[in-house]
Amino acid sequence: MRDDEEMGRITLAQVAEKAGVSISTVSKVLNGRQDVAAPTRVKVERLLETHAYRRTARSSREAPLIEIVFHELDSIWAMELIRGVENVAKANQASVVLTESGTRHSPAPDWVEGVLQRRPIGVVLVFSALPQEVKQQLRSRSIPFVIIDPAGDPDPDVPSVGSANWNGGLAATRHLIELGHRRIGIITGPEDMLCSLARLDGYRSAMSMAGLETGPGLVRYGDFHVEGGFDRAVEMLRLPEPPTAIFAGSDLQALGVLEAARVSGLRVPHDLSVVGYDDVPVARWSSPALTTVHQPLRQMAEEAAQMLLRLRTEEASATRLELATSLVVRNSTAAPATRD
Amino acid sequence: MRDDEEMGRITLAQVAEKAGVSISTVSKVLNGRQDVAAPTRVKVERLLETHAYRRTARSSREAPLIEIVFHELDSIWAMELIRGVENVAKANQASVVLTESGTRHSPAPDWVEGVLQRRPIGVVLVFSALPQEVKQQLRSRSIPFVIIDPAGDPDPDVPSVGSANWNGGLAATRHLIELGHRRIGIITGPEDMLCSLARLDGYRSAMSMAGLETGPGLVRYGDFHVEGGFDRAVEMLRLPEPPTAIFAGSDLQALGVLEAARVSGLRVPHDLSVVGYDDVPVARWSSPALTTVHQPLRQMAEEAAQMLLRLRTEEASATRLELATSLVVRNSTAAPATRD
Repeated sequence: MRDDEEMGRITLAQVAEKAGVSISTVSKVLNGRQDVAAPTRVKVERLLETHAYRRTARSSREAPLIEIVFHELDSIWAMELIRGVENVAKANQASVVLTESGTRHSPAPDWVEGVLQRRPIGVVLVFSALPQEVKQQLRSRSIPFVIIDPAGDPDPDVPSVGSANWNGGLAATRHLIELGHRRIGIITGPEDMLCSLARLDGYRSAMSMAGLETGPGLVRYGDFHVEGGFDRAVEMLRLPEPPTAIFAGSDLQALGVLEAARVSGLRVPHDLSVVGYDDVPVARWSSPALTTVHQPLRQMAEEAAQMLLRLRTEEASATRLELATSLVVRNSTAAPATRD
Repeated sequence: MRDDEEMGRITLAQVAEKAGVSISTVSKVLNGRQDVAAPTRVKVERLLETHAYRRTARSSREAPLIEIVFHELDSIWAMELIRGVENVAKANQASVVLTESGTRHSPAPDWVEGVLQRRPIGVVLVFSALPQEVKQQLRSRSIPFVIIDPAGDPDPDVPSVGSANWNGGLAATRHLIELGHRRIGIITGPEDMLCSLARLDGYRSAMSMAGLETGPGLVRYGDFHVEGGFDRAVEMLRLPEPPTAIFAGSDLQALGVLEAARVSGLRVPHDLSVVGYDDVPVARWSSPALTTVHQPLRQMAEEAAQMLLRLRTEEASATRLELATSLVVRNSTAAPATRD
C-alpha cells in the first residue's frame, strides 16, 4: 500500500481512526475505487480536505497519461486543442486520454473517479469553472490540472490559459474601418459568455475611436454556430441600410454569413466583407478564404500541457496565461463597393 | 506476478528456460517494460510467438480504456472517428486514449510498448496494415484490435470496418447523370489508395451504363485535400470542353472545386455542379452546402469499438464489416445550364 509512505499533514492512519474505518478503506477512497459506500466516501473526503492531506511526493504509480476533458467534442475547437496536448504528450513519451463529459461549465460527477484510478500526469480541462469538490479531490491526490478557457471566464484559483478576446475584436473592426467601411455589423457569441462580451467591447471601442455609430440593428448575439451566423446576417442584410461589412465573431458564424450573402445574391467581398474569429482550418477552406482573428488554440493547449508538467515539480499556483490574438487577412474582406 | 497463473500452450517458466533468462524478465517483456535489453526482448518475443503463448483469461489489471491510434490527427475524419469511439467508451464506463503515431500504413515501433503497459480493453487502429510483429505482440497479450479502414485496403487477417466505396462512386455519378449532365469530371484520391480506385470504378461503371464517355481530361487523381481539388478543377475548367459537373472524391477536394469555380467566375450549382464524398461537418457548412456521399465514419468507429468489446469474450476472428454509403443531396448540384 503505497499511500502509507506518502504523508502530508495528517497520516492515513489518523484519517482512518477519525473516520472509524480501516486504513485500506481510506486508501480506496484516495484511489477512486468504487467499492466504498457513499457515506463513508463523503466522510473520508471531508477529513482529507479538512486536514489538508496531501501527498508529499508523486506516487510511483503515476501513469504516462495526460488527460483532456471536453464538455462538447463537437466543438470545432476540439481538434486543435487535442493536437496541442498530443504534441506535448508525444514529446514526453505520454499518451492522451480524452473524455467528453458534463456541461459547459463543469465535468460530470463520476469523471473524477476515473482520473483518480488512472493517476495521470495531469488534467487539461476545457471548462469555465470547476466545482470546489472536484478541485479538492484532484489536489488531495496531487494531480495537477489546468483550465483552457477560450471563453475568457477563468476560475480565479486555478491555473488557466486563455487568449486576448478584446484585442481580437478591436483588430477585426479596425481592419474593416481601415478598408473604408462605415456601416459595420457584429454578430458576437452568446450573451452569457465573457468572450462574446469582450469581442463586442473591442468592436465598440474601435467604432467609437473612429467616430462611427453602432446602431442597434448592427449588434447581434449569435450561438457560435453556422445557423446563428446565417440567421442574424439575413436579418441585418434586410435592414433599410444594411452593413457593408460584418464581423462574425467566430469562423462558423462567418460561414453562415457567407451563405446568407449567397442566397441574398451578394458577392463576398465585393458586396459584403466578412471577418471571422478563431482561424480554425475551415477558415482557410471556405470560398472565399476567410479573413479572421487567429486564436492560437493549438498553442494554448500546448501551454496548458506544459504547465501540467511544471506543476508536477513545483507547488501549484493560480497562474493566468493569456496568449495574443492576431488578424489574418485572406479573401473575404475588401474596400466597400460604391452602391447605386 | 499475475502472468504465472495465466498460461497458454507454453508456460512462462518454459519460455524463460528456453531463452536462458529469468521468469521475471519474460514477464517484463510481456508487460512492455523498458528495462530489458533489446536482444533479450527479441529472443523472448520470438519464443512467445513460436510457441503461441496466449493468456487464457483477461488479466485483472485490464484498465477501462479504449485506445484509438491515428497516423494523422489532422485528417478531417479524425474527429468523427473519435466521437464514435468515445460514444461506445462512455456507454461502457471507459475512457479513450488517443495516439498519433507512425505513417499512413502502420504505427511507430515504440507505440506498442505503451499499449502493453496500459492494458486497455482494446485498440482501434486507423491504418491500412499492421506489421506482423505488432499483431503478434498484441495477440500474445490478448489485447483485441480492430482496424478502421476508410481507405478500403484491409489487412486480411485482422477484424476491420470499412464502407462501400465503389457504391458511393456509382451513386454520386448516377445522381449527376439523372440531373442531365453528360460531361462529368472526377477528381478521385491518390492513385495508391484502394478507396480512390473503387470510387473511380464506380464512376466509370455509372458513365458506361449510361453510354457516356470518360475522356482522359475528365479523370484526375487528387490528394484528398483542398489544394488538390482546386488545382485539378482549375485544369479541368480550362479544357476546351469543360465539364458541367465534377464528382470531387472527398469533401475537402469539393471545397477546392468550389473555390476554383469562384475564381473562374462560375456559380455553383448554376454553372457547375459539385459532389463531395465523406459528409464531414464542413459539407453542411460550405456555401452552397455540398451534395455528397455520406460515409458513416462515426458509426464505423462505433462498430469497431463494439467489436473490441465482443472480442474480449470471444475468440478473435478476421471479420470484415462494410457499412453502406448513401447520397445526401444538398445545394451544390442542379441540372446543367444550357450553354450557347
